[in-house]
Amino acid sequence: MRVVITGGAGFVGRKLVDRLLRDGEAAGPDGAMREISEIVVFDQTDPVPPLPDDRRVRAVAGDISDRATVEGVIAEGTGSVFHLAAVVSAAAEADLDLGLRVNLDGTRAVIDACRKLSAPPRLVFASSCAVYGGEPPVLVDDLTPPDPRTSYGAQKACGELLVNDYSRRGIVDGRAVRLPTIVVRPGKPNKAASTFASSILREPLSGVETICPVEPRSRMAILSPRRLIDCLMTLHNMNSARLGAERRILLPSISVTIGEMVEGLERAGGREAVDRIKWQRDDHIQSIVDHWPARMEASRAAKLGLVGDRSIDEMIAAFVEDDLPAQKALAQG
Amino acid sequence: MRVVITGGAGFVGRKLVDRLLRDGEAAGPDGAMREISEIVVFDQTDPVPPLPDDRRVRAVAGDISDRATVEGVIAEGTGSVFHLAAVVSAAAEADLDLGLRVNLDGTRAVIDACRKLSAPPRLVFASSCAVYGGEPPVLVDDLTPPDPRTSYGAQKACGELLVNDYSRRGIVDGRAVRLPTIVVRPGKPNKAASTFASSILREPLSGVETICPVEPRSRMAILSPRRLIDCLMTLHNMNSARLGAERRILLPSISVTIGEMVEGLERAGGREAVDRIKWQRDDHIQSIVDHWPARMEASRAAKLGLVGDRSIDEMIAAFVEDDLPAQKALAQG
Ligand SMILES: NC(=O)c1ccc[n+]([C@@H]2O[C@H](COP(=O)([O-])OP(=O)(O)OC[C@H]3O[C@@H](n4cnc5c(N)ncnc54)[C@H](O)[C@@H]3O)[C@@H](O)[C@H]2O)c1
Ligand SMILES: NC(=O)c1ccc[n+]([C@@H]2O[C@H](COP(=O)([O-])OP(=O)(O)OC[C@H]3O[C@@H](n4cnc5c(N)ncnc54)[C@H](O)[C@@H]3O)[C@@H](O)[C@H]2O)c1
Repeated sequence: MRVVITGGAGFVGRKLVDRLLRDGEAAGPDGAMREISEIVVFDQTDPVPPLPDDRRVRAVAGDISDRATVEGVIAEGTGSVFHLAAVVSAAAEADLDLGLRVNLDGTRAVIDACRKLSAPPRLVFASSCAVYGGEPPVLVDDLTPPDPRTSYGAQKACGELLVNDYSRRGIVDGRAVRLPTIVVRPGKPNKAASTFASSILREPLSGVETICPVEPRSRMAILSPRRLIDCLMTLHNMNSARLGAERRILLPSISVTIGEMVEGLERAGGREAVDRIKWQRDDHIQSIVDHWPARMEASRAAKLGLVGDRSIDEMIAAFVEDDLPAQKALAQG
Repeated sequence: MRVVITGGAGFVGRKLVDRLLRDGEAAGPDGAMREISEIVVFDQTDPVPPLPDDRRVRAVAGDISDRATVEGVIAEGTGSVFHLAAVVSAAAEADLDLGLRVNLDGTRAVIDACRKLSAPPRLVFASSCAVYGGEPPVLVDDLTPPDPRTSYGAQKACGELLVNDYSRRGIVDGRAVRLPTIVVRPGKPNKAASTFASSILREPLSGVETICPVEPRSRMAILSPRRLIDCLMTLHNMNSARLGAERRILLPSISVTIGEMVEGLERAGGREAVDRIKWQRDDHIQSIVDHWPARMEASRAAKLGLVGDRSIDEMIAAFVEDDLPAQKALAQG
């Protein structure tokens, strides 16, 4: 069975490749576990770190909104698609056309390509908690209606609706997964407004100074990359009947303040790590963060057996184990 | 000021033309009332009844998903757009591509055309209570999350999200209005699964036999065309600040059973009218209707001053006054 990962060169995609190679199998269209014969990593950029040298992995370069290319990739034999390609929040806000093209038309290209397949593939679509909005404090549970306050969030919410509808029609067997902010994200800071939430842990732990643009009291709902990948695979392999008609699923998260994250940093890296954070409030980012979900009660996810992190200490420990060595190498140039 | 009505040849559009001509003015982009110098009726078919002979009315034929045509119609000077063009539920279910093209891409063509204008026009987008779904009895209020169970509903829900986002960005000054089933709809039965709800009143009152495919206990949330047009104009002319960021608005409705509708028919048309209904249960339609909102609590609409019907008798009386003469002429050939 072929597994396609769009945006596979990105942060989540790259970790998923490793996991799929390790698992060696995944649920096919009929629900039975199948050997993974090929993993297609579809992206417009090269993977960082480079893809492992494994005969099952094939990189394909292209644009997700190019329907012909996407159809070529999601060809007969594809049993499973992880659709992760997206432009992040800040970029989609700065360029409406780009966001619509990649986040909305790209998603349509993916699900439409699935119409040509003889069996509806499993489709895991990475949506986002940016579908939520409203006045702070934003408290979310499984019944909270999407109310996006960014173009990125609106585009993700549209994608979810289409994944639900295409699932109902039997074109895909979808899971539209609402990701909390993923912390600690390895690598370099990106353009997402949330980037500081990883930076304030990652940079100090690898000996690098960083700026925190929000106040210690600011509260966020976060999930570690390790738990995220577990959740994605659990959902992917889950018996579809357990999901019913509603394929939009809020993932688990823990609600922590920036202050609590920094306390965790001190426990893991000592006072010297904490001293690498410079506090420079940025009103714009503070206001964005204040409008994010501060706490999310993911009861359905819990019932489905999805497990979040237990503490900020566990999240930091996972980063230290999985990513810090590579991160230190990156910091040293 | 130019007012554009897409789908203006349809049932709602045609009534709106009359209303706009009568009003003679409508709120412009800055909120001040402006004289309506031109009403463009954009549609792919000819209006029924034919457009009134008024120098302000201009019919333009074309497809809503044709971006160049739509841009030509929503040209500089357009202060207001009523976007009504859509393929109905059954057609969108039968042909996924058609529904996506008209209901989703068509809406995008409309809001993107507005990006070229020097001032963001008011935009009234006709969405639908088909955005709601779930297990019966479906009870809806302003906090109910959209959960469409048809492709039509999913496409309308996407349109709403985009109208909200384009409003937030200042491209349009939108109102995405969730219409209940409109009863009594004049003219001929159409392909909507809801068509019987009008037929069982309209046909008997004009001396024609009809079939009722659902049981008398079946409950629906309905609104008359007269009140609908009032609601659309009130929302259109309303100070935008009253609406805030959330531009999706559920309209008022009354919750009645089919049995209660038939009792109203008897009061208006006597026993002989009721005898023109043949009861032939259709399991498919019964199941569709059971999954529609049975009751909708539109508190926000009430606060905004939108008024629904008071009773089924009032709704039937409005039909008799506004549409029955033309309906009888139609029935006689
Ligand atoms: N990381 C988070 O905190 C988070 C939170 C919520 C949602 N998500 C979602 O999860 C998914 C993965 O996130 P990530 O953190 O790995 O993001 P990422 O930016 O690291 O990866 C996204 C990948 O998509 C690719 N891409 C962008 N435009 C493309 C195009 N036009 N054609 C082909 N590829 C294109 C990028 O090159 C990139 O490699 C995304 O859909 C994102 O929106 C992530
Ligand atoms: N009437 C109801 O009960 C009801 C309920 C909920 C929502 N709505 C919505 O209200 C709006 C008006 O409804 P209506 O009852 O007047 O419908 P209608 O079918 O009478 O009118 C819709 C018009 O859109 C036109 N149209 C369709 N495809 C087109 C295309 N590709 N290009 C240009 N024009 C096209 C049709 O020719 C038609 O004249 C629609 O958007 C509908 O979805 C209506």
